[in-house]
Amino acid sequence: MSSDPVGLHRVITPSGVLPQAAEKLDARPEIWPDEVRIAVERLNLDAASYRQLAEAYGGDGTAIRRAVLDIVEARGKMQNPVTGSGGMLVGVVDEVGPESPLGVAPGDRVATLVSLTLTPLRITDGLENWDGRGKQVPAHGHAILFARSIVAKLPDDLEPELSLAVMDVCGAPALTARVVRQYVDKGIKPVVSVIGGAGKSGSLSLAAARHAGAARTIGIVPVRHESERLAAAALADTVALADARDPVALAAAVEQAGGPADITVVCVDVPGCEHGAVLSTATGGTVIFFSMATSFSAAALGAEGLAADVTMLVGNGYVPGHAEYAIELLRTEAGVRELFESRLAED
Amino acid sequence: MSSDPVGLHRVITPSGVLPQAAEKLDARPEIWPDEVRIAVERLNLDAASYRQLAEAYGGDGTAIRRAVLDIVEARGKMQNPVTGSGGMLVGVVDEVGPESPLGVAPGDRVATLVSLTLTPLRITDGLENWDGRGKQVPAHGHAILFARSIVAKLPDDLEPELSLAVMDVCGAPALTARVVRQYVDKGIKPVVSVIGGAGKSGSLSLAAARHAGAARTIGIVPVRHESERLAAAALADTVALADARDPVALAAAVEQAGGPADITVVCVDVPGCEHGAVLSTATGGTVIFFSMATSFSAAALGAEGLAADVTMLVGNGYVPGHAEYAIELLRTEAGVRELFESRLAED
Repeated sequence: MSSDPVGLHRVITPSGVLPQAAEKLDARPEIWPDEVRIAVERLNLDAASYRQLAEAYGGDGTAIRRAVLDIVEARGKMQNPVTGSGGMLVGVVDEVGPESPLGVAPGDRVATLVSLTLTPLRITDGLENWDGRGKQVPAHGHAILFARSIVAKLPDDLEPELSLAVMDVCGAPALTARVVRQYVDKGIKPVVSVIGGAGKSGSLSLAAARHAGAARTIGIVPVRHESERLAAAALADTVALADARDPVALAAAVEQAGGPADITVVCVDVPGCEHGAVLSTATGGTVIFFSMATSFSAAALGAEGLAADVTMLVGNGYVPGHAEYAIELLRTEAGVRELFESRLAED
Repeated sequence: MSSDPVGLHRVITPSGVLPQAAEKLDARPEIWPDEVRIAVERLNLDAASYRQLAEAYGGDGTAIRRAVLDIVEARGKMQNPVTGSGGMLVGVVDEVGPESPLGVAPGDRVATLVSLTLTPLRITDGLENWDGRGKQVPAHGHAILFARSIVAKLPDDLEPELSLAVMDVCGAPALTARVVRQYVDKGIKPVVSVIGGAGKSGSLSLAAARHAGAARTIGIVPVRHESERLAAAALADTVALADARDPVALAAAVEQAGGPADITVVCVDVPGCEHGAVLSTATGGTVIFFSMATSFSAAALGAEGLAADVTMLVGNGYVPGHAEYAIELLRTEAGVRELFESRLAED
C-alpha cells in the first residue's frame, strides 16, 4: 500500500474518507517515505473543545484528562466527538521520510498548523504532567505529518507557548488583513468591528485590520474587565461592551462606536452570534466567522430574514504565510503581546 | 407597545431575540400599522426540513402532516426544530397597515421571500388538502409580514407553483452570478462546478454561471437518471457522475470534466459535501455553500486540513433583485424551465 499526500493511507474507518472525517486513524509510529514523525511536547486544545469537555465533566481535571486520553486512544487523533474540533501541537522532528516535501530536519522544534482532527497521534505518558485544567496540555507521544501538511518552525526569540498560542489562531489575522486590503484596493477604508476583540484571535484581527488600512477599528467585548484590558492594549480605536448573542444590543453598540461596520469579524466561541454580526454590518459589507460555534443555517437564514445584503465568509484557517504574519504582529504590536502573555499566565 | 421593523414586537419567548431565533412568535391576525397580513394559499417547505420529517416519520403522510401542524401551533411559525429551517409561502394580500413600506395592495398574489422561520403563521384548515407527501403544502390561514420583509408579486404569465419553486431558491443564482462577475471583472473567465446541478438551485446556478460569463460549467450529479436529465437540459458544458460525500471521487470527477473549478457551488442538501467541495476547487478559488446541510466546522477545518487557500461563502439567500433575476432565467432558459416543470410534476 502506498501513501497519499492528504493521508488517505492512514484512515482505518470508514474506508475512503479523508483523515479529518475518519472515525479512526492509524497512528503507528513507522512512517511512509513522504511522512514526518514528531515527538510531541505539548497539545493546544481548541477552545470550543476544551470548553465542552470542561462543562461535560463539571471542571473535574482528572475526568477531563481521562476523556482526552480515551478520545486519542479510540480515534488515533484528538478530535472532540461533540464539537468536531481539535487543536494543534508542538514537538520536535524525530524522523523525516526521504520523500517528504515539508523542509524540516530531525531536531527542529515545530508547531503543526494542520488541525489535530486529522493528525495521527499516540500519547504514551498518560498525560501525567497535565492537571486537566486549561487548554495547554504537556504530553509525550508521537504525531504524524503527511506530505500535504503545514508545519512551522518555532522562532528562537519567543517562548514556545507564546508561539503556539499565536499560531493556533493565525488564520484569523491573515484573512482579516486580506479582506481589509480588498476594500482598500477598491478605494474604501473600511470600518472593522471585531466581536471578541480582547481574545487571542480577536486581538490579532484588530491589529491586522489596522495594519492593513482600516479607517477605524471597533473591539466588542462582553464584560468590563475585558474592555479595560483591550483599552489598555490600545489595539482598537473604540472599545464597546455588548453581549454578542443579543443582536439588537450588539447593533446598537456598534452603531454608537462609529458603525455600522463594513467588515465584522466574529472571534467569540459562544453560539448565537450570527444574527448580531449580520445586523451590525452595513449593506454591502462582509462578515467573517472564525468561531467554531458558528451555525451555518443561523448565518444563512439570519441574513435572509434580515434582508441583509452582506458577504459571509467561513473563516478558513489557512492563508499562505499566515503563521509568519501573526508572529510579525506579535513582535511589532506591544498590545498584542501584552494580551497574549496575560492570557497565557491565566491558562 | 409599538412595532419594530424586524418584528421584535411579535416575539413571545425568549424575550428580546430576533423572530428567527425565537422559540415562539405571536401570530395573532390583528396587524400593527407597519405590517401586512397575507391570506395563505400554499407553503413550500425547505428541502432539508421536509426530508428530516419524512425520515423521522418513515414517509407516513398523516404523521408528517400532524408534525407540521404541531410545530406551527407550538411555535407560531413553521421552523423545523431539528434542521432549524423553514421555507416560504404564497398567498393573497389581505390587509396592509397604513405605514407599511412593502408596496403591496389587498388582492395582490405574492410570495414571501423571507423565511418561514421568522414569519408569524397560523393554520386554520388542519392542512386537510395536503397528504403529507411532498414539500408543497396547500394551506389556509394567515401570515404576517414586518416592515423589513421581502415580498414579490407573482408573475401573471407563470403558474404560481412554478414561481414559488423558483423564488424559493432565487438567492443561489443571484449570488453565483455575482461571484462569477467578480472573476470576469478581474479578467478571469472561471470554470464553475455546481454540485447537485440537476436540482432547482443547481440548475438555476448553472444557468446563472453561464449567463454571467463562466468559461466552462460542470454539473455534478449523483445518479445516472439525473445526469441524463441535466444533459438533456443542456445547462452544463459537462455533466459528471460523482458522490459528493466522497471527496476523493468528487475531485477526480471534476478534474476529468475540465476542473479543478475556480468556483464550486454546493446545492445538494445532504451532509458531508464540504471536504469534496474544497478538494475539487483550485487554489485561490471560491466555494459557495447553499446547502442547509452544510457544517460550518467541517468546512473551516476541512480547508485548513487540506491546506487549501480557498474563499468559502455562506450562501446568503438575499441578494437585491434575486427574484426577478431567477424568473428571468426561467423565462429565457428552456432547460431551466424543463427541469423545474418536471420536478414539480414529481413532487
